[in-house]
Amino acid sequence: MSRLAVTIFNEFLHERESDLVRAVYPDGIHAEVSSAVSERLDADVRTATLREPEHGLTQAVIDATDVLFWWGHKAHAEVSDAVVERVHRAVLGGMGLVVLHSGHVSKVFTRVLGTSGWLRWREADEKERLWSLQPSHPLLDGIPEHFELEQEEMYGERFDVPEPDELLMLSWFQGGEVFRSLCSWRRGHGRVIYFRPGHEAYPTYRNRHVRRILANAAAYAGRRVRQDLGRPIQVEALEPVPNPGKEHVG
Amino acid sequence: MSRLAVTIFNEFLHERESDLVRAVYPDGIHAEVSSAVSERLDADVRTATLREPEHGLTQAVIDATDVLFWWGHKAHAEVSDAVVERVHRAVLGGMGLVVLHSGHVSKVFTRVLGTSGWLRWREADEKERLWSLQPSHPLLDGIPEHFELEQEEMYGERFDVPEPDELLMLSWFQGGEVFRSLCSWRRGHGRVIYFRPGHEAYPTYRNRHVRRILANAAAYAGRRVRQDLGRPIQVEALEPVPNPGKEHVG
Amino acid sequence: MSRLAVTIFNEFLHERESDLVRAVYPDGIHAEVSSAVSERLDADVRTATLREPEHGLTQAVIDATDVLFWWGHKAHAEVSDAVVERVHRAVLGGMGLVVLHSGHVSKVFTRVLGTSGWLRWREADEKERLWSLQPSHPLLDGIPEHFELEQEEMYGERFDVPEPDELLMLSWFQGGEVFRSLCSWRRGHGRVIYFRPGHEAYPTYRNRHVRRILANAAAYAGRRVRQDLGRPIQVEALEPVPNPGKEHVG
Amino acid sequence: MSRLAVTIFNEFLHERESDLVRAVYPDGIHAEVSSAVSERLDADVRTATLREPEHGLTQAVIDATDVLFWWGHKAHAEVSDAVVERVHRAVLGGMGLVVLHSGHVSKVFTRVLGTSGWLRWREADEKERLWSLQPSHPLLDGIPEHFELEQEEMYGERFDVPEPDELLMLSWFQGGEVFRSLCSWRRGHGRVIYFRPGHEAYPTYRNRHVRRILANAAAYAGRRVRQDLGRPIQVEALEPVPNPGKEHVG
Repeated sequence: MSRLAVTIFNEFLHERESDLVRAVYPDGIHAEVSSAVSERLDADVRTATLREPEHGLTQAVIDATDVLFWWGHKAHAEVSDAVVERVHRAVLGGMGLVVLHSGHVSKVFTRVLGTSGWLRWREADEKERLWSLQPSHPLLDGIPEHFELEQEEMYGERFDVPEPDELLMLSWFQGGEVFRSLCSWRRGHGRVIYFRPGHEAYPTYRNRHVRRILANAAAYAGRRVRQDLGRPIQVEALEPVPNPGKEHVG
Repeated sequence: MSRLAVTIFNEFLHERESDLVRAVYPDGIHAEVSSAVSERLDADVRTATLREPEHGLTQAVIDATDVLFWWGHKAHAEVSDAVVERVHRAVLGGMGLVVLHSGHVSKVFTRVLGTSGWLRWREADEKERLWSLQPSHPLLDGIPEHFELEQEEMYGERFDVPEPDELLMLSWFQGGEVFRSLCSWRRGHGRVIYFRPGHEAYPTYRNRHVRRILANAAAYAGRRVRQDLGRPIQVEALEPVPNPGKEHVG
Repeated sequence: MSRLAVTIFNEFLHERESDLVRAVYPDGIHAEVSSAVSERLDADVRTATLREPEHGLTQAVIDATDVLFWWGHKAHAEVSDAVVERVHRAVLGGMGLVVLHSGHVSKVFTRVLGTSGWLRWREADEKERLWSLQPSHPLLDGIPEHFELEQEEMYGERFDVPEPDELLMLSWFQGGEVFRSLCSWRRGHGRVIYFRPGHEAYPTYRNRHVRRILANAAAYAGRRVRQDLGRPIQVEALEPVPNPGKEHVG
Repeated sequence: MSRLAVTIFNEFLHERESDLVRAVYPDGIHAEVSSAVSERLDADVRTATLREPEHGLTQAVIDATDVLFWWGHKAHAEVSDAVVERVHRAVLGGMGLVVLHSGHVSKVFTRVLGTSGWLRWREADEKERLWSLQPSHPLLDGIPEHFELEQEEMYGERFDVPEPDELLMLSWFQGGEVFRSLCSWRRGHGRVIYFRPGHEAYPTYRNRHVRRILANAAAYAGRRVRQDLGRPIQVEALEPVPNPGKEHVG
């Protein structure tokens, strides 16, 4: 089997516009996520950012990608509909998609799930504690029963997503809310994962448990098949039917 | 509680263009579906068709609808994106949606679910037998363990939809295929139902079991709440946090 | 349709052995749960307690019950296996079952679900805040987005239950844990609900939101069908088969 | 990582009592299932049969097993409750369990799932065609969109099991029924799989697709963690609580 081909998309605006964020992620969030994946997996990892042509996500890049990570926040509206359509189609065809933090209202995520991504939020330097619900799941391999992030943005329920196929972690927040923080869904032949932490102003992607989950997600969501789900296909019967050569009405 | 407000959308092209289909549904499929709902429920039922302005689905109509039925086949592409967006938003806000038969690749259905609706199909006048998986579910109230449709179009797996929240019926086809024929999902505050049978060339919507399921679907998917899931909302903490008045970065 | 027949089972030991608990529930927890159901539903409500013959749950009582509530804590082991078997079979046949609080390790609950009910716990007079995930679900009819219980026992994840068919509320605890507090599963033809709050030392069952959920649960889990799922049945073919009269081997 | 430890349990009565069955499986069904696993996986495979002491499933054997296959039919009642309890506890603790064909009413399967395993059946030498719903799932790796078994026993819905966490294959039967033929559930830390085909009078376990699924199941359900889910544990608070040293009532 060939090496896992991972593409990390990052909006890459905060890190260039804010001294505070640049101090946390001097090379960009995509660099940190890339290193988290690379340090555990034998994978080909490339990155893509919003202001590149086609956001760095040309058809050739997407075709060569087994799993795509997505971090965006302030410029969701700038993502072109053509790229959203391309990503969506690729997911249905078998590409994995790992949506991070503020990607909960990205065009890609809401298109793929069909929901709004609505939630409550607050930025108050508060503590988040994540609890594992399924220690035997590959996404939680090596993760303790709970771990803490000393400061994070708060996301609170109700999180408007479809029922997860797999609900893997719940977050407790100091300010009184809870959240479904690690979820997975199948869409077409592709696996979609949402992982909550990762506000740009905190060093969340350097936390070792968070990094482990990023690597686990790349492995778990990696492509297993490739099939274009285009138009429904007309088929001949496998058993005798009354009118096998019938012209279709309509 | 006010009466259930049901809107039946039908493309209404086959019935006007084909003598064969008009012979089966002289007043249009929407009329037959309407009567199936009305004969069992105390509901306000209206209809809407493709060639009306805004397909008969103005914002006022959608706002006044508790559950929307959708039958379309040959002209999915003619449905305006604005109406699709309006219906999608209404579902997230609590409106029910019942998608029938060839609506499996309608813009509305694929948008709401995020999948392609791909499947295998064949028109050969063959027999379909539907099996109940959950006789205790409200959608199957009054439905026997199995029932037959002597002639139907075949739809076969793999049906490209998200895992159903509720899988209620499976179909057996004479030609050798199987299908998940009655499924339900929650999207936002709305309930989405897919019910397979209903090809325009057969009198399926006059079958008493099919009619019962249509009425059950109207009741089950009827609106229970109304809330616009617009932008995520910023909230104050319910418990003490380190930095309650912090300015949001970004 | 006949009135809903509700049976409330309570261990009824704490209230007789502890002055503190008796002060909270002078007539027993079963009396409080009964009144919560009766005040909203037109139902026949009876009660049953551990020290009655057959725990008050004779075959005749179970046969006449549409939904059974279960509160037990310190004497799970005293519940006879015959009654557990009777309740289990009734659930498969269509009776609803609403398991409360410390019933998470009752014989009835673990038998019906097939899991251990394992969790973390602590009694420290701490605050619990319950968050609604599905405001459009009948179980949460009339319930706000969140509500608080000033003092409760803490139950924390990982809660060892099968994936809920429906996950409806999550709890936040002052001491740092989270919990899936309102869940539902189908078993056979019966609906099983687990609702977390209700430690005997706090007046939880007098909280108006908790009471509303108890009444909602009685209505939602009420019997819809009655069928004894005994031995699998041998059936004749509905379509031609090669060897219709074959003797079964074995 | 150490090699996967697989144990194949077979009742092993039909093969000794029936010339017909012995002609199909001269070394027993367990030998055929073992070879299917061994030919694809680097695993330690052992077998166990009903008439051995403790059915060959001593505590030491179970402790050393990562995934247990179960084939039984005519002597479910002979399986000791102690062994059932041992297997159940092991599953909750992380051991995989793959239940085959007539194991649908085995004590082990019904205990672990909490349902009756009820279904319709018929033995008429009829054709079964299995359809894949999730070609991207590890259980279906290498399996075509559909495959046929020329002769099999029929099992038809309604199959009384909890909603599968994963529904992977549906069967079409010549005589007119359908069935959920490949399903998976999580129980505790263990993965439970049910795979329908495998009547003792047909050479089903020599079919290459069936064999591939057996091997896939061994790999997918293999143990990932080991934890005894005994009594719930009392924990100290992670955050300040009002009454941290409180004595537990009851």
